[in-house]
Amino acid sequence: MSLFEKLKAANQKDWHDYTHHRFVEELGAGSLSEKAFRHYLVQDYLFLIHFSRAYALAIYKADSLEMMRSAKNNLSMIMDTEMELHVGFCAKWGISRDEMEKAQEDRPNMAYTRYVLERGMAGDLLDLLTALAPCVVGYGEIGKRLAAECNLDNNPYRSWVEEYASDGFQQATRTAIAQLDALAEEATPKRFERLARIFGDATRLEVGFWQMGLDAAR
Amino acid sequence: MSLFEKLKAANQKDWHDYTHHRFVEELGAGSLSEKAFRHYLVQDYLFLIHFSRAYALAIYKADSLEMMRSAKNNLSMIMDTEMELHVGFCAKWGISRDEMEKAQEDRPNMAYTRYVLERGMAGDLLDLLTALAPCVVGYGEIGKRLAAECNLDNNPYRSWVEEYASDGFQQATRTAIAQLDALAEEATPKRFERLARIFGDATRLEVGFWQMGLDAAR
Amino acid sequence: MSLFEKLKAANQKDWHDYTHHRFVEELGAGSLSEKAFRHYLVQDYLFLIHFSRAYALAIYKADSLEMMRSAKNNLSMIMDTEMELHVGFCAKWGISRDEMEKAQEDRPNMAYTRYVLERGMAGDLLDLLTALAPCVVGYGEIGKRLAAECNLDNNPYRSWVEEYASDGFQQATRTAIAQLDALAEEATPKRFERLARIFGDATRLEVGFWQMGLDAAR
Amino acid sequence: MSLFEKLKAANQKDWHDYTHHRFVEELGAGSLSEKAFRHYLVQDYLFLIHFSRAYALAIYKADSLEMMRSAKNNLSMIMDTEMELHVGFCAKWGISRDEMEKAQEDRPNMAYTRYVLERGMAGDLLDLLTALAPCVVGYGEIGKRLAAECNLDNNPYRSWVEEYASDGFQQATRTAIAQLDALAEEATPKRFERLARIFGDATRLEVGFWQMGLDAAR
Repeated sequence: MSLFEKLKAANQKDWHDYTHHRFVEELGAGSLSEKAFRHYLVQDYLFLIHFSRAYALAIYKADSLEMMRSAKNNLSMIMDTEMELHVGFCAKWGISRDEMEKAQEDRPNMAYTRYVLERGMAGDLLDLLTALAPCVVGYGEIGKRLAAECNLDNNPYRSWVEEYASDGFQQATRTAIAQLDALAEEATPKRFERLARIFGDATRLEVGFWQMGLDAAR
Repeated sequence: MSLFEKLKAANQKDWHDYTHHRFVEELGAGSLSEKAFRHYLVQDYLFLIHFSRAYALAIYKADSLEMMRSAKNNLSMIMDTEMELHVGFCAKWGISRDEMEKAQEDRPNMAYTRYVLERGMAGDLLDLLTALAPCVVGYGEIGKRLAAECNLDNNPYRSWVEEYASDGFQQATRTAIAQLDALAEEATPKRFERLARIFGDATRLEVGFWQMGLDAAR
Repeated sequence: MSLFEKLKAANQKDWHDYTHHRFVEELGAGSLSEKAFRHYLVQDYLFLIHFSRAYALAIYKADSLEMMRSAKNNLSMIMDTEMELHVGFCAKWGISRDEMEKAQEDRPNMAYTRYVLERGMAGDLLDLLTALAPCVVGYGEIGKRLAAECNLDNNPYRSWVEEYASDGFQQATRTAIAQLDALAEEATPKRFERLARIFGDATRLEVGFWQMGLDAAR
Repeated sequence: MSLFEKLKAANQKDWHDYTHHRFVEELGAGSLSEKAFRHYLVQDYLFLIHFSRAYALAIYKADSLEMMRSAKNNLSMIMDTEMELHVGFCAKWGISRDEMEKAQEDRPNMAYTRYVLERGMAGDLLDLLTALAPCVVGYGEIGKRLAAECNLDNNPYRSWVEEYASDGFQQATRTAIAQLDALAEEATPKRFERLARIFGDATRLEVGFWQMGLDAAR
């Protein structure tokens, strides 16, 4: 059982609340309000900026060249690929890069990104990767499930689902799991308690992120 | 005009939303639901832990022994005095120290404390003190105003108001303003933009903190 | 065997080079050049400033109120007690506080303090305490040994030796060892490798600190 | 006058000691001992690892996407290009990658890299870029001067000089100067004092780095 699986098992309810949030279910069903989705999209762009900073922090925190290079790949994937994909994706919804860069960060967005950055700074690389894991692996899990379970034919959010169900993104989740496992030897029982708390906190903050989308549409 | 006054002037609406939040007004009127207040009290204890960490960070960030000692005074005031006052205060409401230490941090609480810690780490001491200011000075301003405006005779929250209106706390707010002013020479127009954004973000996160109390009572 | 003892055992040669450095031996024999000692004293004052910052960082990094309070005690001991003792001690050697505060940090001094601060930031609390340990425990060990082995009757450095051999300082070393042991469960074999490297680096940098004194007198 | 020029002007003597160090002059004359150069080469590889970490920190510290991308370019240049060039260069001197990765960091090397990382963490991006500048710009200045002044025909260190005199590296120094200038508005008189101290410290630590090479050959 991978360290990731153990962390998930220690936070089952929160993990389910996150990966089966109403926002997610409505996304899969195609019934999500456009206003909720658009708010989410803009916030997600700002999120990616701070997620890039978190991987930069992982490079700084890494203890070996190998781990530095691995974190640098994550950084490049976000800054060179994902952010540009996001801009292209948003353009189709009529949201410009400029509009996103000028948008104000919503509080649940700030809550999650700053928690990851702060926990990662206060702890070591393993704490940081643990705080990052719910996002990467959770999105992969959500994308894969929705692609398998939902009829996406007339779903306006189809390309969102397909992006996270794609081979490329599924590979990224496997990398994140492997990065955690490379440090799993350090997860002694006492240390695991701390890691499980971080994982749980980050998962609850992801729940808040989805909820932010729904709240924006109320 | 102090740097603090300029920061406040640049964020007038957010500052008003924070210092005149419904939670605050109901506190002054004595009409706040006890459930909201109790949730706030427990979260505020957890808040003080991270606020202590923020002043520890200020010691680390300080560039002179004088500023280190000043931040150390803040740290001691919180860890040696305020937290014990808080425990005593909560005991009167039937909330034990143990209950508070085991409570789960609510997301808007995490949002504010982690923002302060993260911004303070990414920037320098001036950024950190700017992120801290809305809390210290805002509470002083709220306490003073409510003590002056409200009839506290039968207000169950009277001692809360009196604590923040007290000479001791008012002195602490003047110190926080003076700490900022000691670095005000560095607030060039461009730098001020960044500081005003930090101050505004922190103020909005304080709004979220009050709202968290009300939401808990819904 | 305490974690500290294990770390020392993994770095025996460096530990011996540090605790039996020529500077130390000459200090015990009373034959150390006054110029070397005076240079050391001034640099040690600047060292204490950064060591205070390192304990402030430990408060920020601590995961529990108990560990925060423990690190805060260290911080207070240095800033409120040791630094004032140092100023008083130096006054007897004709070195004023002002002279020390204006002195330029020597490179081996910077090397050690910045290493501790950087390693402590990149890693977690256990890494930080490991980087701090050689100083606190090493000085205690040196003071105790010199007090037992040397005839201090006409030794001009007698009060230096007695300070570090004193009950108060010996207690501080036991606290540092206990702080490490409180986290020893986390020292898995892989983690221990990293910790032993940190401990060894810090010890070698202490060797450089003594050598700095001798070099100043050449 | 660029901010860099002002910082240099405030540290003229240290800057001259660094850029005209005996190690540098002997490198240009081709008279440097091979032992000194080889020690320098191995340490410089370890240096690049921590310099990469410093640019990762700059990404984390950056306040705008533009500055993040700029720091990411620096990071990629070091990790993807310079380190590989270095490995190739060292291979010609019979030094393998493995030998470099296993080498122990020499104290003057640790002193400089950890100072940059620590100062950059305690301060903000401008402090970090100021601590980084002496390396990048100084090497460019040294390379250019030696290429112009020295007859490199039979100089065994010719390719070292040509690397730092090359258009590519000269462009990198201009970028570093421009990155500082982009933040120059923040360099108020008081702030400049702090920046000049950081620049001076970093420059003195570069002097120590050259001296480390000579000392290794004694």
